Amino acid sequence: MAVGLSGLPKLHPVAGIRLGACASGIRRRERLDLAVIECAPDTVAAAVFTQNQFPAAPVVVARRHLSFTAPRALVINTGYANAGTGTAGEQDAVACCAAVAGHLGCAPEAVLPFSTGVIGERFPVDRILAGLPVCLDALSENGWETAAAAIMTTDTIPKGGSRRVQVGGKEVTVTGIAKGAGMIYPNMATMLAFIATDAAASAHVLQRCVQTAVEESFNRISVDGGTSTNDACVLLATGRAGNNPIAISEGTDYTALLDAVRAVFIELAHAIVRDAEGATKFITIEVTQGPDIAECLEIAYAIAHSPLVKTAFFASDPNWGRVLAVVGQAARTRLDPRAVSIHINDVCVFTQGAKAPDYTEARGAMAMRGAEIKLRVELGNGSQQARVWTSDLSHDYVRINAEYRT
Amino acid sequence: MAVGLSGLPKLHPVAGIRLGACASGIRRRERLDLAVIECAPDTVAAAVFTQNQFPAAPVVVARRHLSFTAPRALVINTGYANAGTGTAGEQDAVACCAAVAGHLGCAPEAVLPFSTGVIGERFPVDRILAGLPVCLDALSENGWETAAAAIMTTDTIPKGGSRRVQVGGKEVTVTGIAKGAGMIYPNMATMLAFIATDAAASAHVLQRCVQTAVEESFNRISVDGGTSTNDACVLLATGRAGNNPIAISEGTDYTALLDAVRAVFIELAHAIVRDAEGATKFITIEVTQGPDIAECLEIAYAIAHSPLVKTAFFASDPNWGRVLAVVGQAARTRLDPRAVSIHINDVCVFTQGAKAPDYTEARGAMAMRGAEIKLRVELGNGSQQARVWTSDLSHDYVRINAEYRT
Repeated sequence: MAVGLSGLPKLHPVAGIRLGACASGIRRRERLDLAVIECAPDTVAAAVFTQNQFPAAPVVVARRHLSFTAPRALVINTGYANAGTGTAGEQDAVACCAAVAGHLGCAPEAVLPFSTGVIGERFPVDRILAGLPVCLDALSENGWETAAAAIMTTDTIPKGGSRRVQVGGKEVTVTGIAKGAGMIYPNMATMLAFIATDAAASAHVLQRCVQTAVEESFNRISVDGGTSTNDACVLLATGRAGNNPIAISEGTDYTALLDAVRAVFIELAHAIVRDAEGATKFITIEVTQGPDIAECLEIAYAIAHSPLVKTAFFASDPNWGRVLAVVGQAARTRLDPRAVSIHINDVCVFTQGAKAPDYTEARGAMAMRGAEIKLRVELGNGSQQARVWTSDLSHDYVRINAEYRT
Repeated sequence: MAVGLSGLPKLHPVAGIRLGACASGIRRRERLDLAVIECAPDTVAAAVFTQNQFPAAPVVVARRHLSFTAPRALVINTGYANAGTGTAGEQDAVACCAAVAGHLGCAPEAVLPFSTGVIGERFPVDRILAGLPVCLDALSENGWETAAAAIMTTDTIPKGGSRRVQVGGKEVTVTGIAKGAGMIYPNMATMLAFIATDAAASAHVLQRCVQTAVEESFNRISVDGGTSTNDACVLLATGRAGNNPIAISEGTDYTALLDAVRAVFIELAHAIVRDAEGATKFITIEVTQGPDIAECLEIAYAIAHSPLVKTAFFASDPNWGRVLAVVGQAARTRLDPRAVSIHINDVCVFTQGAKAPDYTEARGAMAMRGAEIKLRVELGNGSQQARVWTSDLSHDYVRINAEYRT
């Protein structure tokens, strides 16, 4: 199903991080649905969460816990998002944290909860509590693959990425996993992404790093324009690589770490779009020659969210008129249609106010045939640009979302 | 196909208006595709057009012609939208106007062109010119039904509405037709709507009337969030009813006319949503208790545009968590989730920050079962409200839009 992805790449262990998962029967039987990520003492964490005004209970609790102390463990369940569940939902999330803390001998605030699944229903705390010892017994530095599988919902494949780079003369590893296939239009974070490094870095540096990397990865994708109540992206740094701690967010050490983190983030973000619900195409949308990045981004997302454009991609139909209509609808500043041009891959389809002179439907159809397509819109109105990644709108998207829950 | 609509209601003739249509083979054979609406001398016109920055050639020409003189005729073709066609497209539109003007003996500027169909291709002017005499020979006060059929594209049924009211002691008729089933998110107008009355009214009054009515009808619907390049809504007043011309936009005469015009506009706008591409549900979304109308409207449209909400409606699934997520994403002002409530028809599903105590899935499923559903979101944040109408997202929507053009 996933476009151009067949499974997990090699996920290098990160010293100081152990992962365990199990099938606790939260919503379905015999399906991995619970995971724990344990981090060594002195691990530094940085996180970004959904900007949705109705954050899920675990987001509320995780934010609160992070303000108290650095995390020793993350506990993640699928099946239920524990969103729209009020204060009872928060108590449920805290109960799970307390249980993990009891096993690990740490403060409950040193455990961060994450949930994904159906919104509006409370989850079965008892099953989670029963499953936790199994997860904890399974903790292993090689648990990344199992954890990646345990956090899936409508995902068809587990998602992960890993890089090894030199930082301050030491080999540093960055490894991460993510989940998400629908309700994807992250605003500061994606559904759930957990990335760890053994690099040593201050909390300030790590936060700067996660924000920069998120902006160019998870904040540049959309499947269906839905910003989830549960989005969270956590970057953990165990400091076990032995590099001199990175204390300022500039210089070669920071750049080396950021490059590796960003590469993993982008790999995970792409994996989410490639595995988008019902996706048959992986589409890169570039909007260039705009007055500012914000407007380029707005137009790029307007194209990415247009059901008319998305169904045309599904049909491999070079229906550029639909793209033109979206650009004319979404642009805030005044555009001159004669200055706008549209390319599908390397084929120019629209320029100087009309269909390109050498454009033919056959050339357009050829460009649309592949599973990976780049659409470029030049606004002719400035020098800024933005790029986003999205998927098409297929029969399977409707089927999956009409059937989910039932 | 259309939800709760089986065909045209009785369309009363409007004195001074004659309509004719024919199958001129513009894009397909033996299909009505060309219509002319002739209006008597001294007819007053008011119009609103798409706010899309890339208006189609006929929109550009119609705006220009309206600035010169009052119209004597409207010429409408389907098959090609004549959008994204540059100056050549404008010349094509002018050629059609000139041909009609030649037959009627009026200035070319007294003819307004309208097109709908595929964007980006020039239309076959010769076929239109050959078809025009047939349309003109067919002109009749009873031509409303045929014209309604001739302007259809992916519409499954023709759309019309008609009212008779007393204005200034005279019986006045308001009759209109419209087309549109996809790329529907009008911004000042809908795809194409032509409404005429025999009332006498000044141009100023008529413009005020059309803007007020549009705001509460065509500007309150969305099928897929796509604002077309060709949207146009024209209101014609022939003055043949014999009432004292309405010269100010206040008083009982104006109110009586506005009420009738608005009723026809709303009937046409509803018909477009009921016949939306692939629609199986007609959904009314009310957002109340907001700080201002603009924010209520923004949230209502965000719900109407969410593919996750739309697929849930298609599945008759009371998946209110998706609605909650959209509200939390779309609200600009700070919301307290405990003050928000969500109703499906008369069933309260979410209140005080959690699922309503007496809510059951069975009650939700019952409410979702019908073809006409009202969703109400109370923001608990003010006293303003807005209401929009939309359709669901079905397999047929994807099929229609993946197959259209091919």
